[in-house]
Amino acid sequence: MTEIARTPVTILGLGAMGTALAEAFLAAGHPTTVWNRTPEKAAGLVDRGAMRSTDIADAVAASPLVIAILSTFPTTLAALGPAAEALTGRTLITLNSGTPSGARDMAAWAAEHGIRYLGGAIKNVPAAVGKPDTLLYFGGDRAVFDESASTLRVLGGDLVHLGAEPDLAALYESAVGATLLPALIGFFEGAAMLSARGIQAATMVPYAVKWLQMIESVLPVFADEIDDRDYTRPGSSVGLFHDAIDDDQELAESGIDVAWHEPMHDLLRRAVADGHREHSISALFEIIRQPYRSDMDVADQFD
Amino acid sequence: MTEIARTPVTILGLGAMGTALAEAFLAAGHPTTVWNRTPEKAAGLVDRGAMRSTDIADAVAASPLVIAILSTFPTTLAALGPAAEALTGRTLITLNSGTPSGARDMAAWAAEHGIRYLGGAIKNVPAAVGKPDTLLYFGGDRAVFDESASTLRVLGGDLVHLGAEPDLAALYESAVGATLLPALIGFFEGAAMLSARGIQAATMVPYAVKWLQMIESVLPVFADEIDDRDYTRPGSSVGLFHDAIDDDQELAESGIDVAWHEPMHDLLRRAVADGHREHSISALFEIIRQPYRSDMDVADQFD
Ligand SMILES: NC(=O)c1ccc[n+]([C@@H]2O[C@H](COP(=O)([O-])OP(=O)(O)OC[C@H]3O[C@@H](n4cnc5c(N)ncnc54)[C@H](OP(=O)(O)O)[C@@H]3O)[C@@H](O)[C@H]2O)c1
Ligand SMILES: NC(=O)c1ccc[n+]([C@@H]2O[C@H](COP(=O)([O-])OP(=O)(O)OC[C@H]3O[C@@H](n4cnc5c(N)ncnc54)[C@H](OP(=O)(O)O)[C@@H]3O)[C@@H](O)[C@H]2O)c1
Repeated sequence: MTEIARTPVTILGLGAMGTALAEAFLAAGHPTTVWNRTPEKAAGLVDRGAMRSTDIADAVAASPLVIAILSTFPTTLAALGPAAEALTGRTLITLNSGTPSGARDMAAWAAEHGIRYLGGAIKNVPAAVGKPDTLLYFGGDRAVFDESASTLRVLGGDLVHLGAEPDLAALYESAVGATLLPALIGFFEGAAMLSARGIQAATMVPYAVKWLQMIESVLPVFADEIDDRDYTRPGSSVGLFHDAIDDDQELAESGIDVAWHEPMHDLLRRAVADGHREHSISALFEIIRQPYRSDMDVADQFD
Repeated sequence: MTEIARTPVTILGLGAMGTALAEAFLAAGHPTTVWNRTPEKAAGLVDRGAMRSTDIADAVAASPLVIAILSTFPTTLAALGPAAEALTGRTLITLNSGTPSGARDMAAWAAEHGIRYLGGAIKNVPAAVGKPDTLLYFGGDRAVFDESASTLRVLGGDLVHLGAEPDLAALYESAVGATLLPALIGFFEGAAMLSARGIQAATMVPYAVKWLQMIESVLPVFADEIDDRDYTRPGSSVGLFHDAIDDDQELAESGIDVAWHEPMHDLLRRAVADGHREHSISALFEIIRQPYRSDMDVADQFD
C-alpha cells in the first residue's frame, strides 16, 4: 500500500461554511490546520484530527495552501494583517461573498506581499460541500488554479477557472445573484395574493418550481439576444409585459403592496418609448445599462 | 376493431395557442370545429380535417365542449356575445391569461346564461401542448372538470382541479407569475454587469440556471414559514439581504441602472424596522401584505 501525501491546508474562519470546508479536507485525509477569531469553534474539528492555531500567522505557516472564508473582504483583510509576512510565497484563496472591488482590494494586497492569490466563490450551501456537482469558480492566475485544482476538488466536483482577473468570481456572483431578491419578493407577493384568499403558500410551490424551470429554459435565448444585441425575434415581447401593467390595479385593491413594481414598469415604459415594443423582453438590457443620470454628460449616456 | 367515439370539441381563437390546441385534438381523433375572428387562419387546420365555422354561434353549436383561447377575458366576453344562447347547457372552458376579476366576470356571464364554465390556464408554450408533463389547471365545478378531464388530457398530461371558485386558475397564474418579470430583470442586470466588463451574457447562463435551481429548492421552506407565520429559523435572514444594500453603490458606479432596487431595499428596511432583522427573508411576506396606504382607514391596515 502506498500512502499518498495530501497537500496540507489551512482554513481561516470556522463559520458554517468554514467548518464544512475543514470537515471535507479532514475526511479526505489532508493535514488540516484551522484558525478562527473565536477559537472555541474549532473544538469539534480538533476532535476529528484538525490542528488548531490561535495565532493566524502560525496557522498560515502550517500549509502551502490557505483558504479564507470569513464573512467579508474587509473582515478578511483586517484579520490577515498579522499574517502578511507568513503568507508570502504561499497560495491564498478566498471563498467569501463580496463585491468585485472587494476582491480587487484583496488581490492588490496579496500582490503587494508576494502572495499567490485566487478569488473564488462556492455556489452552494455548507451541506453540499464535497459533492460531485457542487460548483466553485475562481478568478486569478491560471497556473495557481491548475496547481490547486486537485486539492480544491475535495470541496466540490465542478471547478471552473473564469479568467485571469481576480475579481471575476465576485463579478459572476453579483451578476448571477441579481435574480435572487427580486425572484423571492415575487414569490412572497404570490403568497400574499393566495393568503388574501385564505389559501396556503405551500399549494403554489409545485407550480412556482415549474415556472422557474420555464424561466431557466429561456435564459440561453435571452443571453444570445443580448450578446447579438438583436431583439427582433421575440418569444415574449416588451409590449406583452407593458400591456399587463394595468393588472396591478387589481392586486393593489386586494391589499398587496405593489409599490416595488413601479420602477420595473418604468423600465418597460422607457423600453416602449425607445422603440422596443415589438422587441424581445431582453431588450430591457439596453435600458438597464444606460441609466438616465442628470449628473452625467449627455455624451456619456450613449456608447 | 372498435372505433372509440371522441367528444366533439370547438376551439374559439386560432392564435399561436389556439392553433396548437386544435392540432392536438385533430391528432387525437376528436371531431374539431374551429372559429377565429380572422377566418383565414383556419386554413391549415381545415386541411388537417377541422371544420371551420365563420359564425361563432354555429361553431359553439357543433360541440358539447367549447374551449376559448382569445387574448383576454374582455375580448372573449365580447366575442361570445352572439353565442350566448347557443352555449346554454354546454361546457365552456377558457384558457386565456387574465386577472381573477376577469375570470369572475366570465363566470358571472356564464352563470347568467346557464353555461357550465371552468376557468383554466395552460402553463406552457404552444409547442408543449399534448406532452405528458404539460400542466393545465382549472377552477370551477368539480363535476364539470371530472366530465371533461379525459378530453382535456389531450392537451397535457398534468391536469389539476384547484377548487370550486372559477377564478382560481387566474389567481394562481398571477401568484406564480409574480416572479417572472423581476427574475428576468435581475438576469438582464447581471448581463449588464458582465457586459460592462466585455463579457458575454451566455457565459453566465449555466450559473444562472444552477442559481434558479437553488431558489426552487428553498421555496418549500419559505412557503412553510409563511403558512406557519414563523420566521424564527432563518436559512437566509432579512439582515443578510439588508446589509448587502450598500453593494449597490458599486453597481451604480459601473453604469448599471439600479433604481429599480430602491423599493426592494425599502421593503428590507421596513422589515428590519418591524423587528424582522434576525428572521427569515420570507418575513417580507408580512411587509408586502400590509401596504402603507394613506387612503386607507388605519383599521384596515391590520388584520
Ligand atoms: N453559509 C452558506 O450557505 C454560504 C454559501 C456560500 C458562500 N458563503 C459565504 O461564506 C462566507 C462565510 O459564511 P458562513 O456561512 O460561514 O458565515 P458565518 O457562519 O456567519 O461565519 C462568519 C465567519 O466570519 C468570521 N468573522 C466575522 N467577522 C469577523 C471579524 N471581524 N474578524 C475575524 N473573523 C470574523 C466569524 O468568526 P467568529 O466565529 O469569531 O464570529 C466566522 O468564522 C460569507 O462570505 C458567506 O457569504 C456562505
Ligand atoms: N402563446 C403562449 O405561449 C401562451 C401560453 C399560455 C397561455 N397563453 C394565453 O393564451 C391566449 C392566446 O394566446 P396566443 O399566443 O394564442 O395569442 P395570439 O397568437 O396573439 O392570438 C390571439 C387570439 O385572440 C384573438 N383576438 C384578439 N383580439 C380579438 C378580438 N377583439 N376579437 C376576437 N378575437 C380576438 C385573435 O384573433 P385574430 O387572429 O383575428 O387576431 C387570436 O385568435 C392569451 O391569453 C395568452 O396569454 C399563451
